[in-house]
Amino acid sequence: MKLMTEKWFTEIYPDEGCALSLELSEKLHEEQTDWQKLEVYQTTGFGRLMLLDGCIMLTSRDNFIYHEMMTHPVLCMHPAPENVLIIGGGDCGCLREVLKHRAIKHVQQVELDGRVTWASEKYFPELCASNNDPRAELSFTDGVSFIEQAESGRYDIIIVDSVDPVGQATRLYDKEFYRACFNGLSNHGILVAQSESPLFHKNLIQSMQSRMADAGFKGTTTLFFPQCTYPSGWWSASMAFKADRPSNHRSVDIETKYYNNAIHLAAQAMPQFMLNTDK
Amino acid sequence: MKLMTEKWFTEIYPDEGCALSLELSEKLHEEQTDWQKLEVYQTTGFGRLMLLDGCIMLTSRDNFIYHEMMTHPVLCMHPAPENVLIIGGGDCGCLREVLKHRAIKHVQQVELDGRVTWASEKYFPELCASNNDPRAELSFTDGVSFIEQAESGRYDIIIVDSVDPVGQATRLYDKEFYRACFNGLSNHGILVAQSESPLFHKNLIQSMQSRMADAGFKGTTTLFFPQCTYPSGWWSASMAFKADRPSNHRSVDIETKYYNNAIHLAAQAMPQFMLNTDK
Repeated sequence: MKLMTEKWFTEIYPDEGCALSLELSEKLHEEQTDWQKLEVYQTTGFGRLMLLDGCIMLTSRDNFIYHEMMTHPVLCMHPAPENVLIIGGGDCGCLREVLKHRAIKHVQQVELDGRVTWASEKYFPELCASNNDPRAELSFTDGVSFIEQAESGRYDIIIVDSVDPVGQATRLYDKEFYRACFNGLSNHGILVAQSESPLFHKNLIQSMQSRMADAGFKGTTTLFFPQCTYPSGWWSASMAFKADRPSNHRSVDIETKYYNNAIHLAAQAMPQFMLNTDK
Repeated sequence: MKLMTEKWFTEIYPDEGCALSLELSEKLHEEQTDWQKLEVYQTTGFGRLMLLDGCIMLTSRDNFIYHEMMTHPVLCMHPAPENVLIIGGGDCGCLREVLKHRAIKHVQQVELDGRVTWASEKYFPELCASNNDPRAELSFTDGVSFIEQAESGRYDIIIVDSVDPVGQATRLYDKEFYRACFNGLSNHGILVAQSESPLFHKNLIQSMQSRMADAGFKGTTTLFFPQCTYPSGWWSASMAFKADRPSNHRSVDIETKYYNNAIHLAAQAMPQFMLNTDK
């Protein structure tokens, strides 16, 4: 058993008794922003690594799965999406994926911490390739207040690309927040929010979707996908539908590394333990 | 950043620059068998943990996904499986899953290291619940020699539940081994073998399936599933069909925690990067 040294970053998931480590070759950036500690490292196997408050946000190597699955399924399930709101998403990976859809007319991104976007532009330029697209509008302010004050029915899609439900971010998991999203969505609008690990956080996924239903949404669906550098290596997103859940999806001709038509359907398959009501 | 201590077991994947750690509460067993170092620990979050030569073989918490996906898809794709051969599989988790299918008449398990099964019977008794089923036959000998000497057409299904392709186990990834499996299979026979991580070992998966085709199999299919405690948290199995690939599968009424009809189909969806020929 080799021991970890200072050449490794280790994120411990204390409630689960497990930890993931990535081998580092160089520290590229460290600062305390107004909101959180922001670090960027070069790793030996995963390209670049961004940490927020000591938690892995993304790596160059595996972020494609998360960003594609937070965007393409929901966009392809909406009959004609034009206006998109991204809450969080400061690394701009979701923004880039959304803008691959030519029918999109406007994407409003609302990230609390402008330094996250600054760091992504500097250290993950590939994720920020579409930041200057004339359809993109980047604001750095509080996403909860933003959606509470938004014009009713303004957005076809709302994507909540947030950190885990701790501290400031817990508000992004509240029924009141989901109700504001409901109001901000157009008639066939769809909300999608990252919803943690199926293996570790089954109860959270189910309670999030209950709150979405309580907030007025007609139905919810879970998406499952691998995500190597997040706890358990397996992740989920929860979709909530303002109208009836669409019975099919549009297939689109965009360049992806993970998502495709078969994956669109496969990601919705519920493992048996998620169907059972026991924990 | 908390550092790892002697209370944690860490498995490093040196080629990938990452590592997984599990928190330990007690060492239950350690021995050098004739073949490998065998350890069993109590963990704080994953139940019990078995290591072979310092690599995680299984934990109580997450082995259900691997064992179900190595057995039920292949059994449900065969029109009428009766005789099954398991090569490796000493923890008996695959054996238990196979025996849930009532139509199965005989399961021959061939594990090189009898001490693995001894340890599983002692420390993972739930996996060994069917070891005394009259349909089960456990042999402790070399799986490669066994299948080379097997009667032609003897088995409907062959399951290769092996360790990674290093040392002794590399023979289980050879074309000659796949050819012996082909000969040992009945007309509609199917081979399934664990085939490592889609994220880390795409080339291995593709070369395994090429060798299966070279050995005479008419077609191959990859199954994808999460597996928290294996490298990258995402795993695969490769199926090879002696006859035409079945166009549909039987649904069966068995108790599972991960597998079901929807998962059967979903597990076969190919991520886009697996379809591309570039690395």
